[in-house]
Amino acid sequence: MAFEVRFEDSRTRARVGRLTTPHGAVETPVFMDVGTLGTVKALEPRDLEELGTQVVLGNTYHLLLRPGAEVIAAAGGLHRFMRWDGPILTDSGGFQVFSLARMRQITEEGCRFNSHIDGHEFFLGPKESMAMQRVLGSDIAMVFDECLPYPCARERAEKSVEQTLRWARRSKEEPHAEGQQVFGIVQGGIHDDLRRHCAEELVAIGFDGYAIGGVSVGEPEEFMYRAVEASVPFLPKDSPRYVMGLGVPHQMAECVARGVDMFDCVIPTRIARHGTAITRHGNVAIKAAKWTFDPGPVEEGCDCYCCRNFSRSYVRHLLACDEILGLRLLTIHNVRALNRFMEEMRSAIAGGTFSEWKEQIRKETTNNE
Amino acid sequence: MAFEVRFEDSRTRARVGRLTTPHGAVETPVFMDVGTLGTVKALEPRDLEELGTQVVLGNTYHLLLRPGAEVIAAAGGLHRFMRWDGPILTDSGGFQVFSLARMRQITEEGCRFNSHIDGHEFFLGPKESMAMQRVLGSDIAMVFDECLPYPCARERAEKSVEQTLRWARRSKEEPHAEGQQVFGIVQGGIHDDLRRHCAEELVAIGFDGYAIGGVSVGEPEEFMYRAVEASVPFLPKDSPRYVMGLGVPHQMAECVARGVDMFDCVIPTRIARHGTAITRHGNVAIKAAKWTFDPGPVEEGCDCYCCRNFSRSYVRHLLACDEILGLRLLTIHNVRALNRFMEEMRSAIAGGTFSEWKEQIRKETTNNE
Repeated sequence: MAFEVRFEDSRTRARVGRLTTPHGAVETPVFMDVGTLGTVKALEPRDLEELGTQVVLGNTYHLLLRPGAEVIAAAGGLHRFMRWDGPILTDSGGFQVFSLARMRQITEEGCRFNSHIDGHEFFLGPKESMAMQRVLGSDIAMVFDECLPYPCARERAEKSVEQTLRWARRSKEEPHAEGQQVFGIVQGGIHDDLRRHCAEELVAIGFDGYAIGGVSVGEPEEFMYRAVEASVPFLPKDSPRYVMGLGVPHQMAECVARGVDMFDCVIPTRIARHGTAITRHGNVAIKAAKWTFDPGPVEEGCDCYCCRNFSRSYVRHLLACDEILGLRLLTIHNVRALNRFMEEMRSAIAGGTFSEWKEQIRKETTNNE
Repeated sequence: MAFEVRFEDSRTRARVGRLTTPHGAVETPVFMDVGTLGTVKALEPRDLEELGTQVVLGNTYHLLLRPGAEVIAAAGGLHRFMRWDGPILTDSGGFQVFSLARMRQITEEGCRFNSHIDGHEFFLGPKESMAMQRVLGSDIAMVFDECLPYPCARERAEKSVEQTLRWARRSKEEPHAEGQQVFGIVQGGIHDDLRRHCAEELVAIGFDGYAIGGVSVGEPEEFMYRAVEASVPFLPKDSPRYVMGLGVPHQMAECVARGVDMFDCVIPTRIARHGTAITRHGNVAIKAAKWTFDPGPVEEGCDCYCCRNFSRSYVRHLLACDEILGLRLLTIHNVRALNRFMEEMRSAIAGGTFSEWKEQIRKETTNNE
């Protein structure tokens, strides 16, 4: 098996695992950095290595539009194009087609849509998505699915889950890149029985891992955990589980307690560009005037290049002047902050102190400014 | 003496020198990177070290406005604030006051002006400029001067040169930071006799080095060289000579042939942000569609991180998508390209082949796209 559970928490469903891919092993629970257009925004591959990033996520939709399949095929795949030698996970593009593009037509084969960049017409369905992910050569490909919005009426959700399951089957049948794992996606919104049904059907098809989709789409926090609780018990224990689009520390800890192994989110890089630092004591607006003279690092005790070298005063000044270095330093810090967070989490699980650690985290990190 | 001439070309005025500062030695001829607001745009101190940058230039005017003298004083000077341990040269702010700010009043003591950022009123003259440069703690401070525009009528130029000389005397008399060298600035526009007069008067006052100002302000190329030729013969052989605001490779080579040792310019970092690479064969617009599939590096044979790792196709894609990494990679390349250029130039002078090298450079680098 590509996934090995190495430690299990005795009081929760949390576990430490190792996922083996053609580009190396991934220690789970893992937070994956989003590299939308073939770059984790403002960072280089050497930065990601230094920061302890294990997996980069590529967006099939964005890369299909720019630079397009031909350019990446000519480069020999996304790893070579962006020069990242570690594992890459690609999404299917379904989420972006439904949320970003101007939709023209949805059929059993997929979606006809216009690019949100230049209006150019594209078609993306399970066949096209898997073909593009084959070109990208990702280590982990995601099935093409429909991500349900929140809220979503029962009838709509039922139909959508069946569509997602048919697309999952087609995605599985398409040819994949050598060594490429394929993950199914459990949908079903807030309807527990639909989640269970979707999970069971996906397991019957058989995938290398399972995502829990339609989480972190604007629903209250308790619905997020309920969606996880309604899905995980029906997924194989020996397969990785992945909650897409989630990157808030205490929420990741809660999901891990419910059996989740993988996460991704644009949060660390996006809020860095808006001047916000992720710290163990909540998010901190470094641009604030109160840091004007502050000689301390962005976060005490952090081992990143930003915190080892620069003062809040300096970083605040750079941000106030819209200097690229300011957002780059905060991006470096935020990526490292989440990677450190996951390292700590893995240690806590392996050391049998996960529940206490999680409770402490909940108290500390929800102190956002 | 802080400046030592180590090799002299037998056929031109070119020389290789070493300038000793409190933060290390500088091999000349040198190109200095502009770090306007306490950062060479998009680069970190560790990048500058890796790229072979020897001196960072700080702008007194910009740093006076943001973050202000108090913040930098609290940090213990510009070196500590921006964490650059190498030599720093600061300009006097005069050029920016006359070109950027909304001028209110010019007196014998200096200029009252409104910030171009928020309209806040400031006063900057020789006394204030030297005080600010003392706070910055630069290794080399420049006297407060008036930079003549091109063209400039004789009468105006005469008056301005006398003002510049009075301000130079006052700048010299002000207290300086420990170990801080002070450079005078030769003005005089295109009037050879004014250049000579200004140079001789400055030498009589006595400075650690001499800049040739009012060059590269829009005048034809031959006037630029003529201003250098009209100034250099009247400056001490054992002092460094600096042409401010110049960074075009073949123009730097021509100025070195006329006895210049130091240069600075925003060109390499600014044009990088607009998608242009500096190469030995002229400037190249990497954003151009013709590089869409190009697997080669931005410049063949370049040893920078960008060229060692990424294709023109990838960098073009990043630039087309306005990704920060694209302009950062080109900034890395351009800074390295000019540093390599100066390294080559020093080798050519030391090796006795400067004239041949300069002729080859002229042919190769003026082939701009």
